[in-house]
Amino acid sequence: MEVGFLGLGIMGKGMSMNLLKHGFKVTVWNRTLSKCDELVALGASIGETPAAVVKKCKFTIAMLSDPPAALSVVFDKDGVLETIGSGKGYIDMSTVDHPTSTKISEAIASKGGHFLEAPVSGSKKPAEDGQLIILAAGEKALYEEITPAFDVMGKKTFFLGQVGNGAKMKLVVNMIMGSMVNAFSEGLVLAGKSGLDPHTLLDVLSLGAIANPMFGGKGPAMIQGNYSPAFPLKHQQKDMRLALALGDENAVSMPVAAAANEAFKKARSMGLGDLDFSAVFETVKDLQH
Amino acid sequence: MEVGFLGLGIMGKGMSMNLLKHGFKVTVWNRTLSKCDELVALGASIGETPAAVVKKCKFTIAMLSDPPAALSVVFDKDGVLETIGSGKGYIDMSTVDHPTSTKISEAIASKGGHFLEAPVSGSKKPAEDGQLIILAAGEKALYEEITPAFDVMGKKTFFLGQVGNGAKMKLVVNMIMGSMVNAFSEGLVLAGKSGLDPHTLLDVLSLGAIANPMFGGKGPAMIQGNYSPAFPLKHQQKDMRLALALGDENAVSMPVAAAANEAFKKARSMGLGDLDFSAVFETVKDLQH
Amino acid sequence: MEVGFLGLGIMGKGMSMNLLKHGFKVTVWNRTLSKCDELVALGASIGETPAAVVKKCKFTIAMLSDPPAALSVVFDKDGVLETIGSGKGYIDMSTVDHPTSTKISEAIASKGGHFLEAPVSGSKKPAEDGQLIILAAGEKALYEEITPAFDVMGKKTFFLGQVGNGAKMKLVVNMIMGSMVNAFSEGLVLAGKSGLDPHTLLDVLSLGAIANPMFGGKGPAMIQGNYSPAFPLKHQQKDMRLALALGDENAVSMPVAAAANEAFKKARSMGLGDLDFSAVFETVKDLQH
Amino acid sequence: MEVGFLGLGIMGKGMSMNLLKHGFKVTVWNRTLSKCDELVALGASIGETPAAVVKKCKFTIAMLSDPPAALSVVFDKDGVLETIGSGKGYIDMSTVDHPTSTKISEAIASKGGHFLEAPVSGSKKPAEDGQLIILAAGEKALYEEITPAFDVMGKKTFFLGQVGNGAKMKLVVNMIMGSMVNAFSEGLVLAGKSGLDPHTLLDVLSLGAIANPMFGGKGPAMIQGNYSPAFPLKHQQKDMRLALALGDENAVSMPVAAAANEAFKKARSMGLGDLDFSAVFETVKDLQH
Repeated sequence: MEVGFLGLGIMGKGMSMNLLKHGFKVTVWNRTLSKCDELVALGASIGETPAAVVKKCKFTIAMLSDPPAALSVVFDKDGVLETIGSGKGYIDMSTVDHPTSTKISEAIASKGGHFLEAPVSGSKKPAEDGQLIILAAGEKALYEEITPAFDVMGKKTFFLGQVGNGAKMKLVVNMIMGSMVNAFSEGLVLAGKSGLDPHTLLDVLSLGAIANPMFGGKGPAMIQGNYSPAFPLKHQQKDMRLALALGDENAVSMPVAAAANEAFKKARSMGLGDLDFSAVFETVKDLQH
Repeated sequence: MEVGFLGLGIMGKGMSMNLLKHGFKVTVWNRTLSKCDELVALGASIGETPAAVVKKCKFTIAMLSDPPAALSVVFDKDGVLETIGSGKGYIDMSTVDHPTSTKISEAIASKGGHFLEAPVSGSKKPAEDGQLIILAAGEKALYEEITPAFDVMGKKTFFLGQVGNGAKMKLVVNMIMGSMVNAFSEGLVLAGKSGLDPHTLLDVLSLGAIANPMFGGKGPAMIQGNYSPAFPLKHQQKDMRLALALGDENAVSMPVAAAANEAFKKARSMGLGDLDFSAVFETVKDLQH
Repeated sequence: MEVGFLGLGIMGKGMSMNLLKHGFKVTVWNRTLSKCDELVALGASIGETPAAVVKKCKFTIAMLSDPPAALSVVFDKDGVLETIGSGKGYIDMSTVDHPTSTKISEAIASKGGHFLEAPVSGSKKPAEDGQLIILAAGEKALYEEITPAFDVMGKKTFFLGQVGNGAKMKLVVNMIMGSMVNAFSEGLVLAGKSGLDPHTLLDVLSLGAIANPMFGGKGPAMIQGNYSPAFPLKHQQKDMRLALALGDENAVSMPVAAAANEAFKKARSMGLGDLDFSAVFETVKDLQH
Repeated sequence: MEVGFLGLGIMGKGMSMNLLKHGFKVTVWNRTLSKCDELVALGASIGETPAAVVKKCKFTIAMLSDPPAALSVVFDKDGVLETIGSGKGYIDMSTVDHPTSTKISEAIASKGGHFLEAPVSGSKKPAEDGQLIILAAGEKALYEEITPAFDVMGKKTFFLGQVGNGAKMKLVVNMIMGSMVNAFSEGLVLAGKSGLDPHTLLDVLSLGAIANPMFGGKGPAMIQGNYSPAFPLKHQQKDMRLALALGDENAVSMPVAAAANEAFKKARSMGLGDLDFSAVFETVKDLQH
């Protein structure tokens, strides 16, 4: 099975490697073409432009950093729209807001192409390990055709109905996660400032009703001030903002998410946007003006 | 081994039953004495007053609902102070603030008695199943003597040093939990209002980095509007308040916990204080004035 | 002097009436044309479409409810763009976000027209009394030409530089106001629930460092539960959202505004969006689920 | 008329000077006695202890920094309780929580003395100018006797009924003020970061519905980073905390006040507690970790 793959960032690289390792023929494109080298060494072909990738492949998967990048790859010169058409499928796995997803969906459909949005839950490690959770929505027939690729990249795929539902589900999950990492950060600082050992807090948390992989996985690194980006803070904050906008649209008041979002914004103002989203921990510590 | 047990509420009942089932001789007391019947049927003795229980037993465990109750049992007429003394140990497993714990500790010490605070993490079910996490602090020697009882009531015990540290650790854990149940509630409502199935959200969450027993255990009941109290909301809000006060004392700003606390207060104003703390979910739904 | 006037809502009606009363020749248009009747009775002409108004008048002022309305009047069929051109000025006094303002500005300029944004501070009463504060930005020459009209509608006009600055200043002011009405509401409820007379609170506030016209003007009505819309809550919430988005763009963390915004959203979910923005008071009272 | 005066801090000094200037005979006491020198130079007598002052004077006024100081002056050795009794009145003008006020009231009454709480609204300048707002509660007869002194220190006095009501009213007012100074700070930073001149924002605000003396009085100094303490931030934060506790007691959810309180706590953690409360402005600016 041959697939195109647009976007080789933190996530896309791991995902496309898994496709290669499992025998897919993969044609890759990245804005900075040099990032393709490692994939080429593993057997991937290169497409010069998004349009060229789509022209060559029946199915093209995209994994881009944000809504502007997702739109650019489709609508700009040499973009997906130039070569998409009847019999071809475009699967956007980027995390975008639902209006962006809908806009792309409609443009693809207007050219006779097929569209699926399929944002993922999971960051760098699950992407590398093929352990993502895939939240697909759009055309059911395309969903069924592309399932073999999803099976290689993820541990579980949900089909959620109409386009936009994948984006929305992703935002809801990430919003909860963003509030949780703030709650966790507040707890770690409170423990330390109150004379408790934050490592003991991790042990206690690991045994109780709120034990979860994120606390266990990120806690020790956070205590050490290590924020290598598995999921960059600026992207997490973007997801909080989009989730809050979705709540605004539906008149859902979400005071905890709103407070968490402001903490992420504070972190951005401190220059932490490119670090892991767990760097919001720094905002809870003593700061200087 | 013979122990006294003061307080047979949601938690105390399960805990004292586990002591009985594992061969401890238990003398129980409860403000409403009729609540002792079930324990007596299983072999417990009754003490007429806290003082009587302490007089009879070398070790007395208390599990009371809040700081005023914890203080009353010790300082009021017929209270623990009247009979505690050299060679006797008092183990308070209630969740109280650290000034309360310290006050009790000093009073017990002034009579020559020994003191351990040992609040627990876990609610009704873990109490019944002997699966609590016990956060002990105070006199190390008493801790070692009472360990057999802890082993029956809990799955893991931490010894945290000086009196107050158990209370503080408990508050930190519950504060994180309180913020999390709010984040979770906001996500559930946002999902529903955005056209997603909240049950699918539970499935997606169960597979990802923030999967945890609380989401899995409480989510389905919350969606149904079922809030049988495992841990009453008013007690959760009390713990948020005390944790925020601990933060105030140490100049730790905790905006997410503060927002969560206000949601719990809103729930209290709606008459939900005696339901499970997950009833904060109701505050996120559409309300009427 | 002849001016066109698009939009006769709560604000636009008072503003256009002041122009008429001070001798301006005014041609009005409103989506629901029947709303023009009162103005016609006072001597206004009617334009059938925005394009018709602009064709007839050298200067056209617009006062529309939100960004979509402001865009629609310019870009839709029979819109401003069809007839704007060299020698004509378009002054948009609606409260919109700065991207909207910029988009309109560029479109007008591309046709050779002149543009000024001029959002106002002040609601129904100041609009009727010609006591608005006008926050103008854009082409300085047009600003000078239209000053006679501004003098009639407002008590003070600021020229703030490039297009977008008027919109931004307006959002900053409304954001502060939105947080203040929440703080005030919380104080009124806290007073009442604590056994104090809310009217006495108004008296105390009126004498101190935070005395301001809004507390004095709205307080008595709020206590009575009277929320006749001077400035509809849904528009206030829109301004909070836009101000927070401006903060997001510039990495400014604003936790108090964010909390206030969530309260306005809660009010919207309670069906209070069309009432005065002071109806956020209802969210602080006891609610039912 | 002869009065005692306990506490010569920022507020007490101005207040007692006004008494002296208007012909009252004043006996002063301060923990650091050297602070009495300036008053003595103006004609005041010195009392060696609170007990000595009360022994000498029919009426004694206290103006202390916080609840512990207010309690200490009454209950400690050489305190008010030792000499208060029938025919003597004690007027506590400190800002304390209502349980503190009630505790003092009951102790004074148990000795046969008379009590009035009379916290004030207003800081350094109004204290010096005799322009305070006085929120009295307690014994009506004492209120009437002490009115001549109130008239000299304040521009308006309210009698609010039973002891505790003065404290509560003060907290409500200060809570609103604390949220407002945060809203104002957020607006100033947002303006500056968005390319607007913060001084123009002050001008715009001064003309509109939310114009108030605090914005006008503190704004220019805040922009310059000048926070000479008229009302220290740590005391403002204490009042927010007590107001939130009053809300907790009455199940009033106050999310905006809670967010403002966390900002003040952040300011404390940054070492700004002794500056003016407007220094919370610093927390909104870009911070470093």
